[in-house]
Amino acid sequence: MRSIHVALALLLSASPCLAQDKVVLVIHGGAGGLAKKSLTHEIDKRYRDALALALMAGHKAIKSGTSLDGVEAAIKTMEDSAVFNAGKGAVFNRDGRQELNSSIMDGKTRKAGAVAGINRIKNPISAARTIMEKSEHVFMIGEGAERYCRDQGLEMVSPLYFWTDSAWKELLQAEASAKRKAGALLKDPPHYGTVGAAACDSDGNLAAGTSTGGITYVGPGRVGDSPIIGAGTYAENAACAVSCTGKGELFIRQTVAVDIAMRVKYRGDALKKATDDVLRELPKIPGGAGGIIALDRNGNVAMAYSTNCLFRGTITQSGKIWVAIHEE
Amino acid sequence: MRSIHVALALLLSASPCLAQDKVVLVIHGGAGGLAKKSLTHEIDKRYRDALALALMAGHKAIKSGTSLDGVEAAIKTMEDSAVFNAGKGAVFNRDGRQELNSSIMDGKTRKAGAVAGINRIKNPISAARTIMEKSEHVFMIGEGAERYCRDQGLEMVSPLYFWTDSAWKELLQAEASAKRKAGALLKDPPHYGTVGAAACDSDGNLAAGTSTGGITYVGPGRVGDSPIIGAGTYAENAACAVSCTGKGELFIRQTVAVDIAMRVKYRGDALKKATDDVLRELPKIPGGAGGIIALDRNGNVAMAYSTNCLFRGTITQSGKIWVAIHEE
Repeated sequence: MRSIHVALALLLSASPCLAQDKVVLVIHGGAGGLAKKSLTHEIDKRYRDALALALMAGHKAIKSGTSLDGVEAAIKTMEDSAVFNAGKGAVFNRDGRQELNSSIMDGKTRKAGAVAGINRIKNPISAARTIMEKSEHVFMIGEGAERYCRDQGLEMVSPLYFWTDSAWKELLQAEASAKRKAGALLKDPPHYGTVGAAACDSDGNLAAGTSTGGITYVGPGRVGDSPIIGAGTYAENAACAVSCTGKGELFIRQTVAVDIAMRVKYRGDALKKATDDVLRELPKIPGGAGGIIALDRNGNVAMAYSTNCLFRGTITQSGKIWVAIHEE
Repeated sequence: MRSIHVALALLLSASPCLAQDKVVLVIHGGAGGLAKKSLTHEIDKRYRDALALALMAGHKAIKSGTSLDGVEAAIKTMEDSAVFNAGKGAVFNRDGRQELNSSIMDGKTRKAGAVAGINRIKNPISAARTIMEKSEHVFMIGEGAERYCRDQGLEMVSPLYFWTDSAWKELLQAEASAKRKAGALLKDPPHYGTVGAAACDSDGNLAAGTSTGGITYVGPGRVGDSPIIGAGTYAENAACAVSCTGKGELFIRQTVAVDIAMRVKYRGDALKKATDDVLRELPKIPGGAGGIIALDRNGNVAMAYSTNCLFRGTITQSGKIWVAIHEE
């Protein structure tokens, strides 16, 4: 029975996303310094459950819709969970404010939407999609983006919606640490809690999206790679769909997401090789630069990280879920 | 004599920027719908003089410094001129405000700086460079970016500094036109007045930068490709330096600047071919998508546009200036 499946899979491998039970959605919930031995059962379960919920929501949306629906549903679920640093779980900057960033891209049309510096729209990923689909623009920031999305009927919230006890405690710790010793923050193992997704639907159309709540105690106005098309997010049917998490500055400078896609497109690199190489070529920093997920039309998946862990998971066409935090 | 020069140039063509009087700086002052027959002597002279001034300022800075100095000096000169839609010449958005955007990139280190949504820093290109060199970040927006740059000692101005009579008249015209007929704006020939530069210094290091004052009567918060590394600006010694102007949304979606660089780097495309191809592959829109300038370490220059004109110019190592607006 198994050998028949393998033969079928080989036969069908040229058909985008139609072969035997291929991965249709891959997600990440950030990369970080959390060591395997420090992972309590409680934290482990909390993240695994949150990843599985997002995978199921995305899977359902892809089945009844498109890869874009899947990316939005998976990321929205993670934004609402307060488990990750995105949406409800966003962290405070040095002004004691949240500045949320997100982007989404359609691999079929290469249309894209992105938003940065917002704290009144409940789901930044939906803001990015609304800008992509309803406006004549790609990228909107701050109050102008908020007003536009409100006029388009998106769910608005008070900035207080994003205030969580855990983000508040993190801010106080970071502030105390900064006062104790300049630069001490940099020595803590980094945690990049950004979330992201890459999906392929039954038409073989790819999509990718990313959403972040920033960095605790960061300078106001700083924008990372999450809302930058080509850096944190990229999707093109002829290449792949990519979402990144990590030290955003490095991902912008090396245009990580599109670099992976271009190696696949122009040089015929295998998806895994392109992803591993681009990550390895990033400047080295203590704790590691971050993590990347990628998916192509043939169901090939790449997941790479230079941190201790990457919260990640996949779901197949038939609904088989796999989640992981460290090397398995 | 001529054949000796040609032979020498061929002999030296492998040495970055050191061969016979190669181009060391290429600039643009936007692309647009202005037809050759509508170009009065006065407008022609105004633009050519402004381009020549910027080329001379950039040339001087490269001679005594680096390609980054050249890019900053050339763009600063254009920002201060009020001739182009950048810096002093920025246009008003639909709120009657200016939102200036800029970015710069160092081809040697692939470090970059970018800024968006500011109207209190006199020279956005210097803000981008300050963020690149002084902060741990790449991209900063809005008031947070302004506060950071003020603290770094950059020259600050009142938002009123950017109010010019011509931008004000353009806003009134656009508003009247929008009231008369929805969509009428789109039928006017587009003018993308963004400025940009690409330079190579005697060490063979490339740099690129872009600066814009937005689009008249555009929705507040909209950001185009100018501050996006990989879209409006990209520089990498192993490939080329690129600056774009045009319908920014298309340039973000197709990551124009880095796409050109990746075709050169991964596929060995000639710079001119890569530039022409990427421009041609942009979605077609009435009036044309925009223009691109690019320069590599060997002094190869590419300038392409799908609009009626591209305000552009080059200067060689010895100081020979060439400027053009239409096909020559």
